[in-house]
Order: sequence, then structure tokens, then C-alpha cells
Amino acid sequence: MKKTKPSSVVIVGSVALDSIQTPVESHTDMLGGSASYASVAASFFAPVKMVGVVGADFPKTCVQLFRKRGIDLAGLQIAEGKTFRWAGVYEWDYNTRRTLSTDLNVFEQFNPTLPADYCDAPFVMLGNIHPALQHCVLDQVRKPKFILCDTMNLWIETAKPELLRLLKRVDALCLNDSEARELTGLTSLVKAGRAILKLGPRYVVIKKGEHGALLFSNGDFFSAPAYPLEDIHDPTGAGDCFAGALIGHVAKGGAVTIAALRRAIIYGSVVASYNVECFSLKRLETLTSRDISRRYAEFIRLSRFHAP
Amino acid sequence: MKKTKPSSVVIVGSVALDSIQTPVESHTDMLGGSASYASVAASFFAPVKMVGVVGADFPKTCVQLFRKRGIDLAGLQIAEGKTFRWAGVYEWDYNTRRTLSTDLNVFEQFNPTLPADYCDAPFVMLGNIHPALQHCVLDQVRKPKFILCDTMNLWIETAKPELLRLLKRVDALCLNDSEARELTGLTSLVKAGRAILKLGPRYVVIKKGEHGALLFSNGDFFSAPAYPLEDIHDPTGAGDCFAGALIGHVAKGGAVTIAALRRAIIYGSVVASYNVECFSLKRLETLTSRDISRRYAEFIRLSRFHAP
Repeated sequence: MKKTKPSSVVIVGSVALDSIQTPVESHTDMLGGSASYASVAASFFAPVKMVGVVGADFPKTCVQLFRKRGIDLAGLQIAEGKTFRWAGVYEWDYNTRRTLSTDLNVFEQFNPTLPADYCDAPFVMLGNIHPALQHCVLDQVRKPKFILCDTMNLWIETAKPELLRLLKRVDALCLNDSEARELTGLTSLVKAGRAILKLGPRYVVIKKGEHGALLFSNGDFFSAPAYPLEDIHDPTGAGDCFAGALIGHVAKGGAVTIAALRRAIIYGSVVASYNVECFSLKRLETLTSRDISRRYAEFIRLSRFHAP
Repeated sequence: MKKTKPSSVVIVGSVALDSIQTPVESHTDMLGGSASYASVAASFFAPVKMVGVVGADFPKTCVQLFRKRGIDLAGLQIAEGKTFRWAGVYEWDYNTRRTLSTDLNVFEQFNPTLPADYCDAPFVMLGNIHPALQHCVLDQVRKPKFILCDTMNLWIETAKPELLRLLKRVDALCLNDSEARELTGLTSLVKAGRAILKLGPRYVVIKKGEHGALLFSNGDFFSAPAYPLEDIHDPTGAGDCFAGALIGHVAKGGAVTIAALRRAIIYGSVVASYNVECFSLKRLETLTSRDISRRYAEFIRLSRFHAP
């Protein structure tokens, strides 16, 4: 079989230092942010070009982790001041998260500027940041083959017009179940997914946490299985890892097809399921392609019901 | 391929006349009850022997529906007095149900007595009724090959010791996600499912409504996909249909294997998904085996991600 050379993926988002409390542990100033999680997750599948900003205080060990994963950091600005910091706490069931503090720091003046060789990347992931910044990245890329956009409730509530304008410029939107309901005002996820298709994107991916994920497109529906996670240590970044691995896998094959997207959603679930096993990106630091293949095979086994 | 003659299934449960309000419709004295839904659902796969009680006022049309589905009614007692009645209302999202009234009537004195030829049935479904009555049925069957038990939060709250004793006598327990959490005190469904296995049954099926279902057994885990239901008219009886079709399908093949149970869970989901499309058992009245096969094929399509 002829192996395609993986296409590169530009990933923009936040790079942060997170302080997180769970019912059993707490950690301070750990590597976080949507671009960090998504880029490392995608790097298992395709070459990644990161776009973001950090302060002068950004730990060298974090830069080393990105480099070790082969991530192109030409688009990672180092600005005067402190790195973006976020602090949050998870409730006893790990499903409810409360933000304790957000210090934008260097992120406040962030103006994503793509190095020249980023602009021709065929795959673009707009990680979870303000829609205005996501627009700004799209203004710089030339002819991307596939644009995946992630978002969150904050932007639905505070920047809806910009988000709606963005939806007309992207190929796929990735969001979680409560965000899909909030964006559309519909309680049925099936109705919400179909309604979002009408807002612009050709593909809509609804993440349902422990219940798997749904993919909507015109004329097709895919229901990804729930993975039996017993021990969650830190849910932070699961959605970013999911989206990063998803676009990484599609970029690896190069062709944007329903079949590729279905598999990519499973790979996204695999990487996200590993990520929540440890704090920050600790689990991904030691993750191997072999681990990914093993759990992908497990997904096949746990969801099979019809003998071929 | 040699076709096995389907084994018969004894199904015990309530037979009721339900009055139901949803945000858009309301109906009075419609056929309901766990035995009604489960028996009709199972009848698409295997011969069913029903056990229950109705009053003298039980409509002939309901009896005709059972007969039309070939259900053996020798175990359906007709007692003096009125049929069990239940009235409830569904909230706007169809997920929250409030009971308005419960009139046990003839059900109050119900003492399930199995006709002689019921006692050797290889498959037994203990539909959702008081655990004491479920015990009473088990005391009468001789050597069943497979016993499936359904239950609800009411019995977990009011008859837990009897329920726990019952779990040591059955092969499989079927319950929904909130009931699994309530029974075990565990929020993680994976932990809850594994914990219930330790209470006795070899198989635990957790129904997750719109999110599909999970099957736990020693050394195996199955995650059934969510089906994209857009229009729910009446969720009543979905769980009973699921369990009835499940045991019906296993009885059809005769062998209790993981592979058969996985398929049976999909057939359960198929019949339940049809049932919620209309009030009461209206949709099942006109359902055909062809409809079931068609939606089963749809389940294969919507959950496939790996090219064989």
C-alpha cells in the first residue's frame, strides 16, 4: 500500500499555565491551553505548526516537550510579560468545573501572526480562543483543504455574532453537548447537530464526554462509542486533545472523507482517554503510537456487535 | 444454515392502563405496563408466555393485540375489580417524568401463578414489578437457562434487601444509568456496572436513554451506539421494550453468548426506538420484522468506523 506523506496542520489556540484542583489532587502552573493539548495530540499523526503566545516566564521544559514532539514553534511568540494563567476546580464528579481565576497576561495583546511557510498548510485547527482571533488566522491562510474550529460556551455567550460569521468560513465545528444546546436552543442533540449544519460547517462533531461523540454531515450520521474510563485524574484538555488528534489523523491520510472522519473521531477519543489519566500533558509525554493503536483496537472490540 | 427453533420466554410484569401527558399530547387509559411492552417486543423474536393480572374492565382490544402477536395468555389472570392504572406527565425535555397517580387495584393482590407448561420455559424475564413478586416467579420455574431481571428506582429505595437477594438468583440485570448510580452509590457508570457484577448477575446492562447502552460481564465490555431519535412522542415503556426484545432475540438463537447478547442489545435499542415514536404500543402494533431488520442495518451503518 502506498503511504501518503502526512499533510501539515496549523494549530492556533492558547498556551497557558494551569492551576487545577480535583477532589483528590491539586497542581500549580502546569502546562495547559488549547494549542498545547491539541498540538501535542495532533503530533502523533502529522507535522504540527503551532501558533500562540507565551510570556518570558514560560518554562523551558514545556518548550522542550513541544520540540520533542517535533512541533514547529516558529509561530509561537514570546512576549514580554507573564504567560496566560488559568485556575479552576473540579467538583466531586469531575463533570462540573469552576473557574477560580483567569489572568490573560500576554494573551491580552495576542495578535496571531503566521510565519510565511504556515500560510500554505492544508489543514488548519482553530483551537478554542476568541472567535476574532480565529478569524484573524483564517485571514492569513491561503487555500486550506480543511478547517476545524473548536469553541466554548464563553464565546457563544459573549461573541455570538463573530462565532456565527466564523461558522460560514470553516469546514467543521467541534463542540460539546451543552454548547451545542446553548448555541441552538435545542435540547435534542440530533436536532442541534442538524441545526448547526445549517449555520455553515459541512461537518459537526458533538462531544458527549463519557458517552462518546456524534458526527453530523449532510446525509450521514456517526455515533462513536463510549469508552469505559474508570479513573479520571484531570479532565482538562480532553476536548482539545480530541480535536487535535482528529485533525491530525485526517491530515495523516490527507483525504477529507466521511470514512476518514469517522476513524479520526475514534483516534480523537483514544488520545483524549489517555490524556485524562494524568494531570496536564503528563500522560501524552510518554504516550506512544503503539499505545494509540492498542486502544484503537480496543474501541473496535468494545463496539462490535455484528459479525462481518 | 440450520435454523434453531426459538425457545420460549416467560415474561412477568405489570399490565396497566396508563394516562400520559407530554408537552404536546395527552391520552387516557392506554395499554401500558412492563409485561405488556416487554411481551409485545419479545414476540417479534420468540414465543412469549405472559404472566400478569388485569381487572374485568380490561379492554378486549388490548387482549386482541396480545393475541395478534401470538402471546400465550394462559398466565394472564383476570381478577374481579379494576385494572392497575398509572398516570404521569413528562416535562418539556421528555427526560423528567412525574407520577400523578398510581391505582394498584387488582395488582394489589397479585400473586403470580405460572401455568404448568410455563415452568419449563428456558428464558425468563422478570419485568419491572416488586422484587417479592419476581422472587415468587423464580420459585416456580424449574431450570431456566437465562433469567433477565429489570427493576426501577422505587424498588432500590423501598425493597433493597429483597432486590439484593434477587440479584444472586438472576443471570442478568437491566437498569438505567441513574438507577445503577443509586444502587451502588457510584457516579462512574463503569465502576457502577462492575460493582453490580459483584452483587450476583453475570451480566449487567445499563441503559443510557439517548446515549445508548453498556453491557458488562466478567472480562468483556460492550458499548452500544446512540441512535439519532429526532421525534419522541412517548418515552413510556422504552426500557421494557428494550429488555423484552433483548431476551426475545437471545431466546430466538437459544445460546447465551456475549456475541448474542451484544446483538440482542442492538435489537433491544431498535424496538425501543420504534416504540417511542407513538403513544402506548401503537407503533409496535404495526411494526414488522422487516422494519426491525432495516433499523438494525442502520445501527450497523451509523456505528461503523473501521473498514473490515
